This record gives sequence, structure tokens and C-alpha cells, in this order.
Amino acid sequence: MKALVLEKTKTLSLRDVTIEERLGPNDVRVAIKKVGICGSDIHYYLHGAIGPFVVREPMVLGHEAAGEVIEVGAEVRNLAVGDRVCMEPGVPNPQSRASRLGMYNLDPEVKFWATPPVHGCLRESVVHPVSYTFRLPENVSYGEGALVEPLAIGLHAATKAEIKPGDTAVVLGCGTIGIVTALSVLAGGASRVIVSDVKQEKLDLAVGLGAITAVNIDKENLLEVVREITGGWGADIVLEASGNRGALSSMFELVCPGGRVVLIGMPVQPVPVDVVAAQSKEVRVETIFRYAHMYPRAMALLGSRKIELERLITKTFPFERSIEAFEYAAEMKPESVKVQIESD
Amino acid sequence: MKALVLEKTKTLSLRDVTIEERLGPNDVRVAIKKVGICGSDIHYYLHGAIGPFVVREPMVLGHEAAGEVIEVGAEVRNLAVGDRVCMEPGVPNPQSRASRLGMYNLDPEVKFWATPPVHGCLRESVVHPVSYTFRLPENVSYGEGALVEPLAIGLHAATKAEIKPGDTAVVLGCGTIGIVTALSVLAGGASRVIVSDVKQEKLDLAVGLGAITAVNIDKENLLEVVREITGGWGADIVLEASGNRGALSSMFELVCPGGRVVLIGMPVQPVPVDVVAAQSKEVRVETIFRYAHMYPRAMALLGSRKIELERLITKTFPFERSIEAFEYAAEMKPESVKVQIESD
Amino acid sequence: MKALVLEKTKTLSLRDVTIEERLGPNDVRVAIKKVGICGSDIHYYLHGAIGPFVVREPMVLGHEAAGEVIEVGAEVRNLAVGDRVCMEPGVPNPQSRASRLGMYNLDPEVKFWATPPVHGCLRESVVHPVSYTFRLPENVSYGEGALVEPLAIGLHAATKAEIKPGDTAVVLGCGTIGIVTALSVLAGGASRVIVSDVKQEKLDLAVGLGAITAVNIDKENLLEVVREITGGWGADIVLEASGNRGALSSMFELVCPGGRVVLIGMPVQPVPVDVVAAQSKEVRVETIFRYAHMYPRAMALLGSRKIELERLITKTFPFERSIEAFEYAAEMKPESVKVQIESD
Amino acid sequence: MKALVLEKTKTLSLRDVTIEERLGPNDVRVAIKKVGICGSDIHYYLHGAIGPFVVREPMVLGHEAAGEVIEVGAEVRNLAVGDRVCMEPGVPNPQSRASRLGMYNLDPEVKFWATPPVHGCLRESVVHPVSYTFRLPENVSYGEGALVEPLAIGLHAATKAEIKPGDTAVVLGCGTIGIVTALSVLAGGASRVIVSDVKQEKLDLAVGLGAITAVNIDKENLLEVVREITGGWGADIVLEASGNRGALSSMFELVCPGGRVVLIGMPVQPVPVDVVAAQSKEVRVETIFRYAHMYPRAMALLGSRKIELERLITKTFPFERSIEAFEYAAEMKPESVKVQIESD
Repeated sequence: MKALVLEKTKTLSLRDVTIEERLGPNDVRVAIKKVGICGSDIHYYLHGAIGPFVVREPMVLGHEAAGEVIEVGAEVRNLAVGDRVCMEPGVPNPQSRASRLGMYNLDPEVKFWATPPVHGCLRESVVHPVSYTFRLPENVSYGEGALVEPLAIGLHAATKAEIKPGDTAVVLGCGTIGIVTALSVLAGGASRVIVSDVKQEKLDLAVGLGAITAVNIDKENLLEVVREITGGWGADIVLEASGNRGALSSMFELVCPGGRVVLIGMPVQPVPVDVVAAQSKEVRVETIFRYAHMYPRAMALLGSRKIELERLITKTFPFERSIEAFEYAAEMKPESVKVQIESD
Repeated sequence: MKALVLEKTKTLSLRDVTIEERLGPNDVRVAIKKVGICGSDIHYYLHGAIGPFVVREPMVLGHEAAGEVIEVGAEVRNLAVGDRVCMEPGVPNPQSRASRLGMYNLDPEVKFWATPPVHGCLRESVVHPVSYTFRLPENVSYGEGALVEPLAIGLHAATKAEIKPGDTAVVLGCGTIGIVTALSVLAGGASRVIVSDVKQEKLDLAVGLGAITAVNIDKENLLEVVREITGGWGADIVLEASGNRGALSSMFELVCPGGRVVLIGMPVQPVPVDVVAAQSKEVRVETIFRYAHMYPRAMALLGSRKIELERLITKTFPFERSIEAFEYAAEMKPESVKVQIESD
Repeated sequence: MKALVLEKTKTLSLRDVTIEERLGPNDVRVAIKKVGICGSDIHYYLHGAIGPFVVREPMVLGHEAAGEVIEVGAEVRNLAVGDRVCMEPGVPNPQSRASRLGMYNLDPEVKFWATPPVHGCLRESVVHPVSYTFRLPENVSYGEGALVEPLAIGLHAATKAEIKPGDTAVVLGCGTIGIVTALSVLAGGASRVIVSDVKQEKLDLAVGLGAITAVNIDKENLLEVVREITGGWGADIVLEASGNRGALSSMFELVCPGGRVVLIGMPVQPVPVDVVAAQSKEVRVETIFRYAHMYPRAMALLGSRKIELERLITKTFPFERSIEAFEYAAEMKPESVKVQIESD
Repeated sequence: MKALVLEKTKTLSLRDVTIEERLGPNDVRVAIKKVGICGSDIHYYLHGAIGPFVVREPMVLGHEAAGEVIEVGAEVRNLAVGDRVCMEPGVPNPQSRASRLGMYNLDPEVKFWATPPVHGCLRESVVHPVSYTFRLPENVSYGEGALVEPLAIGLHAATKAEIKPGDTAVVLGCGTIGIVTALSVLAGGASRVIVSDVKQEKLDLAVGLGAITAVNIDKENLLEVVREITGGWGADIVLEASGNRGALSSMFELVCPGGRVVLIGMPVQPVPVDVVAAQSKEVRVETIFRYAHMYPRAMALLGSRKIELERLITKTFPFERSIEAFEYAAEMKPESVKVQIESD
């Protein structure tokens, strides 16, 4: 079948590949309809590696996917041919210690699309376990379905934050992850989210999506805004979605006594942390790695329209122009949030 | 000053009363603007007592109030004359063991408006501690301000429920408390709330307030609706806001494995409970008594318009017609949700 | 192989049975060394059924077992022939929704020893998944190993109780489950446990096992003892391990404001519950069903001798005298806590 | 009255001071019996300041105290003259936002003994609020009573750690705080605690106090010990009680997936933290500042002898030789854990 293959660093080709995939009794075969391009896809494209994960053989890219069920395994009961679905890109070993404890995202044996040496989903179809395949509500498009993967990160962060109804939250960073985190935190109970970044185009988009206050830290003092909104007390929750050293160093100033910080962004190097500043407020710091059990929650929130994602899709390219889509996404224009690739 | 006095069972009079109130350094004096009539007010009016609390002396009624600050104590810093505010009706001893642990609502020494022998707020003005007086956001009316008291119960229930983003909830009972609970649970993270009652008028009101599914249990099978919406799994959270024996007996059928039940309604008699049914799902049951720390959360959620309450106000009477207001409220018409009394 | 078979109600025989058991790659074969007799075994023996579970075909009894590994599957790495082990009697479907969420005990597909139609472990050997087989620390005997099953219930209750260091706990009921619960709660952080029952022999045993205060409710007033020990505040945690109607009705008097109640005992009929009494203290009620993830915790606590169980073993019979062991256990003498059956 | 006064850096005198103390209705007057010397006392003695807290006027030292009640205020009910007590050294404003939320330790208005400009307790008597004064159980000595202050830090850390029964914990650092933390974690539910340090004398003391494994990191590899004890999984909880940069950098290697880290030690400078290492295990990091609500828990655990502290007292000096006591403590000999000062 046709697939978008990363042959080697900076070399993509759209060509035929052979991927052996047996449909097991608890699997479904899904024709891919929409795939979003993630920062990690671009990173593999430009650099051929992310940390210890090095692309040594040609690898199909893509892990944010929605599609249509075209075949079901013998024991599949809750999905049928023709169902519109999205898929979790990571499949763990259900018998690992982490999986049995309910933390399957921490299972080191997880097989994750487009993480070498596992092929991704930018191809005609995939075979996937039914447990990690989810029917889209009728009012949710394939485009939103392909955005469930990043949304799951935001929802996982919001879940770990243990939001109480009416909390005030700060999200540092207004890229795709920052925005889905802000939406997740709002849907998850916050009364207001203050989002900070330096890219005005992204802030302008965010501010139209709900009870969101945007702060361009090139022009405004974030700490002052937080103090004004919270009557000097500080934010109940600060979610770090930039991986930026400066953002990380401001967290404990922004948060209230007894507040929580959630670290989503992944800084490449160790970051200096003022432990005493955290202690004087007894801050709890949560860290997250991908997500677990979030797709059903995403389905429910998209289905009831408490979260809407259409406006995050900046541009959509047909599958035939996948390479062009990657080139466009790799430019990282300030107005570019999510680029998707569409099949018929 | 003028006040609405319950002279004895079924006898109200609007007359002058003398209430000694010294303005302490941390107190404010508030001119009352709006007061809602609560079921407990009506109960005292009709029966002269609620359980062990018996009205033995003439008592001013009312505990759901909003007003305007007309005088501030010497050490008050964060409120000023002219501020629009609402007030928590219960004031605890800050040094009690429960208060120090952060559970001031459980302090047996709490003095609560219109709970004998403490006078209520249906009068010209009150003196109140600044710690229990909250400035209304500009976009929140006095009518909504006087609804913060019942809203605080809903928010307290939603907080105890430890909602995770995207949970499905059931609220049993669609009176004022049922509706504010549904709104609190939605604002607090649920993707959808299923509300049940037998009064169609109230269900019709609720269904227009958000992602709420209304079930008239005289006409529909609630368990089937819950199963359909949750794919057979059950609701993550069931909140009992009716105090009704039948509602209480259905809770463990409706909730999912590992789910939570919150008991808000107060059944007069002990209720038979199927312990084994709860155990087979490891249900957690939370119980609540009034609320603690919820007014700031209500201010935040009303201020960001994640919760709107205007439509709950069925009818407003001027203070001079307070007795008529009570008579109307006591009829408990099916379309009657909240009746309020307004001063100039 | 030889097995103790419940042929029909009140009819046991020790005879040869044929049980087909294929050793899968992730299984081990274990020669049974010790098996404890549980109340449920006796109930099947005397009545032929527990609720909906009816013994329709001859069934091997026993589910509390320890033994020696005699064969390992091809992919087993962390156990070897000769290892001394104990086994969880319930094996879930790892792909069920409950299992994936980490609550495998709530999986309705669990296959549990000696719950019809599944054979139990009172036989020469069993084949068991390695994930549910646990190596005994060197200083833990087979007798203690066969007591891990009831201990796991106590530990699960103690875990759900969310004990804080120094809490005071009450355990209602001093049978095997009451005692292992008291030991679990003490090991799990309580400063003191007050155990109540009417059987003085059992209370005398419990009081020697740690910081346990025994109250014979035929002679002493439990509420007064709790008030004295807690300075009138009430117990932080009350664990109900009797299933007794009277015990259940006293729970909310004994517990402190903001305290927790854990329901372990399984009353046959619905029990009248005073909801308002629970609400006035905002009690949280947890319910449990068997246990999940507790065997590794039991291994750790037995290994460090924070929990010791030898003194709970009242009497041990050789496998050849299994029927006599059941007859003795069925007498339920006041001094009888745990009866075990031993193989060479 | 006589007091130990820090006149200026490195200058102590035992001399008469005049401290105005009115006995309020809810206060008690306590004759001091034993006072422990804390690292912070020594730090003020040697350096005249801790961070922003600078000793500008002569200040009485000492904040770890036990004594005898010699006078009670008019409304005091639960203490009487002659009672043996210990006292929390910090007294908050009960009406502050942090206090009302139950986090009185985070109230910036806290008045804390021997933190400039507040006098400490190394004097003949103190007046103290009854709410922060606790009766010692009969079997608890004044020496242990004066150790409740550091113990409260350990218990607060253990409470924040949300220990589950049978958890394995690591405590980094084996000074007074490290040891009381290890004891708190053991009493609070851990099956075993691994304590690390470079001072063999302190490790030797610790190992005799319970299920404690001591690791001298000059001689042994801590990570290997943790892996062996936990079967390669990692410790459930790591508590950092050294403030040491190296210790802090090892935390995320030692902890298990989904584990918790508690930061007790206070490093002077920001510390480089490997955020991605924490994220890959979804570690939760808790930070603590002193303690809240821990004295009653300490009383309960000392009273039931689940925690015993006598062996932590290295040396006791009479009050007249207080200066000598400080000189001895300031030497920080490897065998020196807690030095106390005793009055008749």
C-alpha cells in the first residue's frame, strides 16, 4: 500500500510499502481518513532522531489518526464495518506490571506509531486492537478525531491536576499542546485559564475558544495579570506546556499556596529549580508522559461539544501532497497550529 | 429596622425589630438587596421546626442574601462602602478543631442565619464578618448573588465527587438543589449530566441550561438511558439531590464500577441500603453538609459565566410583599424554582 | 490427582479427579502445600450455594493456598522450580475495561477458585498464571503464605481507608477478616486499633498482636471507649468486618467529623442507614470487593515482619484428613480462627 | 526571667530578660522542662541569619520544647495545671486564608519561636495558645516531648507521601530529620525504609530503630540496593532529607513508575532537575514547609509506642550549661543526633 516514508533525515517519499499485518480476533482494520502532523513527526523528518530513538530504517510517519473501520476480527463486538473511529497510537503489553496497575502509558514495552522501529499511520490502512480504537460521536468530524491524540495529552494533564470546580489555571505556552491543555482544563472545571506565549497569532486564536485570558509575555507582565485575576493569591494550577527554561523558572511565583504544577513540556536539558520557593508554598508538582484512559473522555467531551477543536486545524493537504504538507508544517509559521493530511 | 418575622408556626409579620449588632473591626454592614426563599424557610414557616431545631421565639427568616456594603470595620481592607456582595449565612468558631482542619461547616458551634435561635437576613441590614462576605463580579446580579448559597451546596457536592474531565454524571432530583448540582457538575468537568425527576416543568428548564439530558421517570426508564449514554458501563458519578427513598435505592444500579455516589438530599428516616450491591462495584459514597470554601469558587464561575443562574429565578417580590412571597413559595408549584424578595 | 470434592451439599469426598490443565508459556505448575479453610468454603459445604453461585456439579474446594513451583512455562523468567509461592485465587481477563483501569477485581469475567463452576485448590497441584503467583520471602512459612488471601482483603480495606499516620481506627468484628484488617490498618499507619466483638477468645488473641484495644460489646460500651481514646472526637476510620446489622448502625456514631467508613462485611439483606447522621459529619463510605494489587504488599509486610500471622492458625490437618478439617471448621468454635490443611 | 539569648552572631549569654506576656483566656503558661537544639538554632548562632531572617536584636533561641502547665486562662477546659505538654512553636492568624483552608503552616503571618524577631523558648516559661499546646501521654517523657517538633516534620512528609500499606521508601539523609522521617514513614505504612548517608554512626543508629536498611553511599551503590529490594521496580516513595545536590539528582532513578518524591531538605541554591526523567515515570513531587495538624498524630504514635524517640537524644545539658550545649551541638560530631537542654 501507499505510505509516507521517512527514508532518512530530510528525505520523505510517498511510495508503496509492504507491511505484514494479520487481523487478529480482537483487531479491526481501519482505512485512514485524516492524520495530523505532530512536532515529533517534524523532528524525525528534520533530525532523524528524538533522544535515544533513532530512525535507522525507512519508517512510515504519523500517529494522530482517524479513519473508517473496513474489517473486524472474529471476536469484535462493539465496532462494525463503516464505523468512524480514532485510534490510540500506543499499544502496551496488557500483562506488564505498569499496565496491570492501570498506568499502561508507563509500560516500557509500548509499541507507538512512528517511534522507531514502529511504522506510523500515514498509509492507506492499519490493523489495530479494538481496545485502543474508539467510535467517533456522530457530531465529531475526522479532523477532530485526528486531533484526539494531542487532546488526550491535555486531558491527561488536566486529570493529574485534580482541578476543583472554579479553580484558576495558568497554561505556559500556546502551541497545539498549550491550547488543548487550556481547553481540557476549562472543560475539566477551571473557571478561567490564563495562557501565555510570545506568538500573538496563537494567543488571538486561543482567546476566542472560551474563558481564556491571553498574555503576550513580550508585552505584559504575567505575574501581575495572575495576581490581579486571583486577588493576589496566585493560580490554583500552573501547567507548563512550553518546555521553556524561563517558563519553568516562573512557575512557583505564579501558583498559590497549596497549588499544583503540571509539567507537560519536555526540556532537553536539566533545568535549575528553586526548591525552597516550591516548599514555601507546599506546591505539588505532577509530571506526565503521554496519557492513559483519555480517549473515552475525549469522545465524551467532543460529543457533548464541551470541547470543540475544528478551529485548531490551520490547513489540510490531500494525501498525495503529504510531502508538501510536511514542508509547510516544518516552517512553523506563527499562525500555524495543526496541519492535517486527508485521504479520500 | 423592618424585618420579616416568623412569630410562630404559620404566622409571619413584617414589622420593626431590634437586633443589637456591633460592627467589629473585621466586620462589614450590608444593606440587604435580594433574599431567596429556601425550602428550609418554608419548612420553619409551615411547621415551626426542622428536626431538633425548634422556633421558640419570634425569628427573622432568610439566609440566601446579596446586598451592598454600607459600612466597614476599622481593619477591613479588601471591601469598601458601595461594594456589591453576597454572604455565607454560617459563621463558625475559627478556633474549633473542625475549623482548624479546614472543615468549618462541621463545627457544631456554627451560627447560621434563620436556624433557631439565630435571626436570618430578611431585614434592612446585617453586620457580617468580612471573611464570610464576598464581592460580586461586575457581571453578576444581586439575584444571582442571592443564589450563591444554594449554588455553594452544588459546588461542594461536585468538589467531593472528585470529577475527572469527561465524566458522565446522574443527578437524582430536579429542584433548586438538583439544578445547581447539575450546573456545578457540568462546570466542574462532567461531559454530560442526566437529571431525573417527575416534574416535567423543572426538567424542561434544566435541559436548556447545558449538556443536560432530562429523564422524567414517570415516562422513561432512567437505568436504560444511563446505560445507553455510557455504553452499558454506568455513570461515573451519581448525585442524590431528592432525599427520596426510591431514588436512593436506585443509585448503585446507575453507577459504574469504581464510581462515586454523593448524598445531598436528607431523607427524614433511615433508608434501606443494599451494601452488597455497592461492594460489587466498590462504590465510594460521599456525604455532604452545607459547604465550606465554596463562595470564592462560585464568584469565579459566575464571573466567567461558566455558570449562569438568572433563569432559576421564577418570581421576585418586593420586600413589602414578603408574606405574599412566602405564601406563593409555599404552594410549591411545579414551575416554581426560586422565589426571591427584593429591597430597593 | 487427589482432590477434596464437594459432591453436593454436606457431602465431601477425597478422591481422584481429572482436571485438564495445559501449562501455557506464562504459567507455572505449583504443588500445593497448605490451604486455609474460608467461611465461603464452609458455606458451600453446608448450603451448596452462596447467593447466585450454586454448586451444580462436583467441585473441588479451597482458595487460600501456598505451595512449591514444580514446572514453569517457556516464557517465565521471575520464578523457578523450587520457589515457595502463594497464589491469587482470582484470574481476570486482562483486556476487560475494569482490568485496564487497574480494578481487575471488578472484572465480571474473573475466574475464582472454588466459586462454581471453577475448581478450587484442595488438590495435589494447580497450573496458574505467573502474574498471579508470588514468591514467599524466606522468613515467611507456607502457613502464612496460605493466609495471604484473607490478609489481602484487610490490606485492600486499609488501602481504601487512606489512613494518615497516627489515625485511630475501629474494626467491628474479630473473626479472621476482622483480625487481618486490624493488623493491616496498624501496619498501614494507624496508631491504635479498637476491635469489637462478643467472642472473648478472639478478642484475647487480637489484643496480643499489636496496639490493639479489644472491646467485648456484651460487657463494655464501645462508643464510650472510642470517645475516651480519641478525646471525644471519634475514630478517624471505622472498618466494618462483621456484616452485622447492629454493627452497621453504630458506624456513624463512632467515626469523627470528616472520617471514613469502610464496609468489608457483606450483610445478606439491605440494612437501614441513617443518611443524615453520616451527612452531619460528612463521612466518606468506601466499599470493597475482594482485592487488587495486594499480594506484593502482603509479601513486603510479611517479609519485614511488620505483619505476623502464625498465631491466627488454630489447627492444621493433613490432606488425608481434609474432611475432618472441614467438620472441625464448620463447628465454628469461639477459639477457632483459621484451620489449614497441609500436604507433604 | 532567665533565658539563653543570642546577643549577636557567635555570642550567647544566659541572662535575665523581660518578656511581656499576658495570659489570655485561651492561653496556658508553661514552665519549660526540655528544649532540643535544632540546626536552625545553630545556624542563627553561627551566622546570625537564615536567608531573609536576620537577627537584628538580641533574641532568645530554641523552638523544640516540652514543659509543665503552671497556669491556665479563664476559658481553658482541656488542660490543667500540672499537665505535661509540648507546644507547636508556630502560631498562625486563624482568620488568614491559608489557616481557614487548613494550611496554617503556609500563613505568612505565622509567629514562630526563635525566628527573628520572635523570641524562642529557651527560658523559664512561655505563654502559649491552648490550641497549639498538647498533653503528653503518660508514657512519653519530656525528652520525647521536645522531639515532637522535628518528628512533626517527618510525619508531615509521610502524610504528603500518601503511603499505601506495604510501600517501600527511601530516605536520603540520616540526620535528625532523616531519622524521624524514616520512623514516620515506617509507622505510616511502609514495609521497609532504605536510609542513605555517609556518616556510619548515624546509619548504625537508624538501623536499630525498625525495618530500616542503611546504605553508606561512600561504600555501597544505593540504586543497586533499591533495585534488589524492590525486584527492579524502584521505591514507591523517595523522601529527600539532606538538601544535598547529589541526593536530589538521584531521586528519579530510585523511584518507581507512578511513584512519589517528597522534598524536605532545603537546598540553598536552585538545583538542576532532569524533568524528562521525572516525566518518563510520571513521578509526583511533593514539597513541604514545616507541618500542620501533626502534633495530635505524634501524641498518638508516641503514646502507642509505634514511634520511640529516646535513642535519638545524644546528650542532655542542664539549663545553666546551655552555652556549652550549643558549643557541643555546633561541633556536629558524627555520632551527635539530638542535643537537649533540661530545666529542673
